[in-house]
Amino acid sequence: MMSMDLNSDMGESYGVYKLGCDEESMPYVTSINVACGFHASDPSNMLKTIRLAKKYGVAIGAHPSFPDLVGFGRRIMACSSEEIKADVIYQIGALWALCKTEGLTLQHVKVHGGLYNAAAKDIVVATAIAEAIKAVDSSLYMLCLGNSLMVTAAQNVGVKYVEEAFADRAYTNQGTLVSRKQPGAVIHDVDIVARRVLSMVKEKSVKSIEGIDIPISAQTICVHGDTPGAVGMIKAIREKLEQNDIKLAAFGR
Amino acid sequence: MMSMDLNSDMGESYGVYKLGCDEESMPYVTSINVACGFHASDPSNMLKTIRLAKKYGVAIGAHPSFPDLVGFGRRIMACSSEEIKADVIYQIGALWALCKTEGLTLQHVKVHGGLYNAAAKDIVVATAIAEAIKAVDSSLYMLCLGNSLMVTAAQNVGVKYVEEAFADRAYTNQGTLVSRKQPGAVIHDVDIVARRVLSMVKEKSVKSIEGIDIPISAQTICVHGDTPGAVGMIKAIREKLEQNDIKLAAFGR
Amino acid sequence: MMSMDLNSDMGESYGVYKLGCDEESMPYVTSINVACGFHASDPSNMLKTIRLAKKYGVAIGAHPSFPDLVGFGRRIMACSSEEIKADVIYQIGALWALCKTEGLTLQHVKVHGGLYNAAAKDIVVATAIAEAIKAVDSSLYMLCLGNSLMVTAAQNVGVKYVEEAFADRAYTNQGTLVSRKQPGAVIHDVDIVARRVLSMVKEKSVKSIEGIDIPISAQTICVHGDTPGAVGMIKAIREKLEQNDIKLAAFGR
Amino acid sequence: MMSMDLNSDMGESYGVYKLGCDEESMPYVTSINVACGFHASDPSNMLKTIRLAKKYGVAIGAHPSFPDLVGFGRRIMACSSEEIKADVIYQIGALWALCKTEGLTLQHVKVHGGLYNAAAKDIVVATAIAEAIKAVDSSLYMLCLGNSLMVTAAQNVGVKYVEEAFADRAYTNQGTLVSRKQPGAVIHDVDIVARRVLSMVKEKSVKSIEGIDIPISAQTICVHGDTPGAVGMIKAIREKLEQNDIKLAAFGR
Repeated sequence: MMSMDLNSDMGESYGVYKLGCDEESMPYVTSINVACGFHASDPSNMLKTIRLAKKYGVAIGAHPSFPDLVGFGRRIMACSSEEIKADVIYQIGALWALCKTEGLTLQHVKVHGGLYNAAAKDIVVATAIAEAIKAVDSSLYMLCLGNSLMVTAAQNVGVKYVEEAFADRAYTNQGTLVSRKQPGAVIHDVDIVARRVLSMVKEKSVKSIEGIDIPISAQTICVHGDTPGAVGMIKAIREKLEQNDIKLAAFGR
Repeated sequence: MMSMDLNSDMGESYGVYKLGCDEESMPYVTSINVACGFHASDPSNMLKTIRLAKKYGVAIGAHPSFPDLVGFGRRIMACSSEEIKADVIYQIGALWALCKTEGLTLQHVKVHGGLYNAAAKDIVVATAIAEAIKAVDSSLYMLCLGNSLMVTAAQNVGVKYVEEAFADRAYTNQGTLVSRKQPGAVIHDVDIVARRVLSMVKEKSVKSIEGIDIPISAQTICVHGDTPGAVGMIKAIREKLEQNDIKLAAFGR
Repeated sequence: MMSMDLNSDMGESYGVYKLGCDEESMPYVTSINVACGFHASDPSNMLKTIRLAKKYGVAIGAHPSFPDLVGFGRRIMACSSEEIKADVIYQIGALWALCKTEGLTLQHVKVHGGLYNAAAKDIVVATAIAEAIKAVDSSLYMLCLGNSLMVTAAQNVGVKYVEEAFADRAYTNQGTLVSRKQPGAVIHDVDIVARRVLSMVKEKSVKSIEGIDIPISAQTICVHGDTPGAVGMIKAIREKLEQNDIKLAAFGR
Repeated sequence: MMSMDLNSDMGESYGVYKLGCDEESMPYVTSINVACGFHASDPSNMLKTIRLAKKYGVAIGAHPSFPDLVGFGRRIMACSSEEIKADVIYQIGALWALCKTEGLTLQHVKVHGGLYNAAAKDIVVATAIAEAIKAVDSSLYMLCLGNSLMVTAAQNVGVKYVEEAFADRAYTNQGTLVSRKQPGAVIHDVDIVARRVLSMVKEKSVKSIEGIDIPISAQTICVHGDTPGAVGMIKAIREKLEQNDIKLAAFGR
């Protein structure tokens, strides 16, 4: 029986500020990426998120970021390789300790926002992240954008990794994501998204924005849980996969 | 052969800002308390401090604080028990991960500044800290102000602990520290300090500010390494102890 | 014709985090207290709030806080008088400059959360705030909790001030606020709240929680705009006052 | 009689962290750029710096930065034009208010570190800064790197500006700064530096790194006060200029 993982960013509330629909979407995903305080979250919100994940048996990963709370980690910063490495290790450890108090371990690390975008295109950044992960715990997976320099870095460094595809994003003929600035970059139709994900899992391919079947290698599908509509999409994807005898399970299990 | 531990705060530099004489004092202490980013330090400076400790075989502890960088963690904040607990766990984990990349483990946790002062007098705060430590790793020691509510909390919670005495501080007849606001609270004469420490170790007592011998139970002595003069005092204490056949060693070894 | 001011905290969103119903409540208040980045808000959100206030002709005040973003400024911090003074001046200036780019000036300063609670009971804190306000601009009003040490400080320092009453809070026989920990401290019935406010304005008195008429001196009424229900309450208060020929106007105009 | 301004970054201490030799160098400069809390400094340190400048009659400018305390504002961040504008206005206002409490006004704005480097090469960034300055107070000067896009932006926006040259930096034949990564980029010989500054002022030219006389247009010379050696260099420059009948005076006076 085939299986697939659905991952989503969670724990991005901060102090009194609430962000996302963690409680609504947690029952439907299999892995989560928990903010670690650099772009979002704080120790108390991280702990709350961990407890929610525990309740539903969801696998936990760290979601480290550039140190930019006011910018939500979305702005690329010209940090050095050594700074990125130390920052990523710090954030993994903080989440690890909070998980440990609940008897849980970490499955993976997926970097956030600007750091993710930088790592996808800059081998120096991607390598710093891979080295950080390996240095802390070689059993951790690096969650990589499929077909990007993150994968190259993970292979070079020798860290375990999985590739992710995006449920609701259009792809170019080359297998890269269509820029959000272009029309059609984000797919909003729930049925189409669910069918695309099914194709990614069963056929290991998806139609590009120009209509060509392109190969997709993904061990996890990124979904969003930040709006009620987004939660509906997760449910639809899950249902579609289950109807087609695909088991939903965290990739590390 | 008797032995004693000398502990000192380290790793309190932040970004480009340098604080303390870590390189000068590291060879002479046996345990350090490393700032974890809430009152001082950042991931890169923490890693640098860990490497320096590794070079000299010094045992490492976490030095968590209230989240108050601009106030250097000195200002007591009315944080809830749950906030303190989560904050302490977070900080321990961050340091733990950085240590792990260097093949090191943590020996203890000593809270900093305002959090230390609050914990000494407030059982709720002290208990939150003890619970945080136990929840992360029950092999960690809680470093407690001797004769304070920290000790009570450690005992109640069932976490391993050591008591610390201060090399250069005057004590009351009741065995508590004389407030820094009172004259004579801090002892500056190197010889007197060294002799007092020797008395603390060999006689388990010290002269109070009123001249009475009071009992002192300490498994570690707190020393300062933030000025060249302070480093000289550490050396003098160390020399005095070694001349009297007292071995300098981290308490956890 | 009598007039009254309704003040509300605004501009407490931060980065991507949204807080409060500023757009919904802005048309119904006459003065706002804008967060200045220490407990909430950031320069971009402050500017957005100022533009919204400008659209509705609402008077603007600064809402400075202890430096505690993660705690939303609610936790009292043991800051020195000099620290509070410099922090308040800094925050007033930051908001002043953003207002100036829109051709607006500041009407008042109302401190936030933990700093407000501290100032109500601690003359040293209240005096630091009054001195800060006077030092920046002696035409600014200090918005004080009625019948508190803030008023004493404003009088001693010689800064202009107004006293505020709370629309939805119960009062003791002594004219102080009933602690939120006690039952009945917050009044949720919209009609009762509106009638109480009318009484505060017309009779300069209100029923205490024990049923006695107590005198209330208020030039501004604090209302909340953080939930849809809260906005409904503002509208009801406003309607009740207007039906009774009381004009709604910022106190400084 | 010719005159020249010497400007230096000051007020970059933060909390307990001391940076720079402000007290030693203040008597010898004529304008200072005061950190505003985003890359360095805090309200209390800003006020201390303002009082020191007042003592010596030194003109004050704001030194706004990207929001990156741990990176000292040196790392370029991909902030939007609107974010930069609001951030710069906020920082100017904060310093303005602190100055006002000492009866002082601001002379200029010089952006810091990564923001300075970005503005020199990116017209969008430089324009955001110029617009921010003009929006707050059209009497403020924008301090621009000579021969850079900052000057273009200042002219386009219509904000007053001065151009600065660097006392101790080598220049290319094109009049741009030699990158710090190249040998010879920084000139350490005090006599040579002093003679170069004299040439900049009297001849309005300086020898390029390749030995060609290039034109320099500068109304202010940037000097450093962060080390005892740097202070010595400021004194030498000042002495050389005074010996040649060049008056030292803030450009705005």
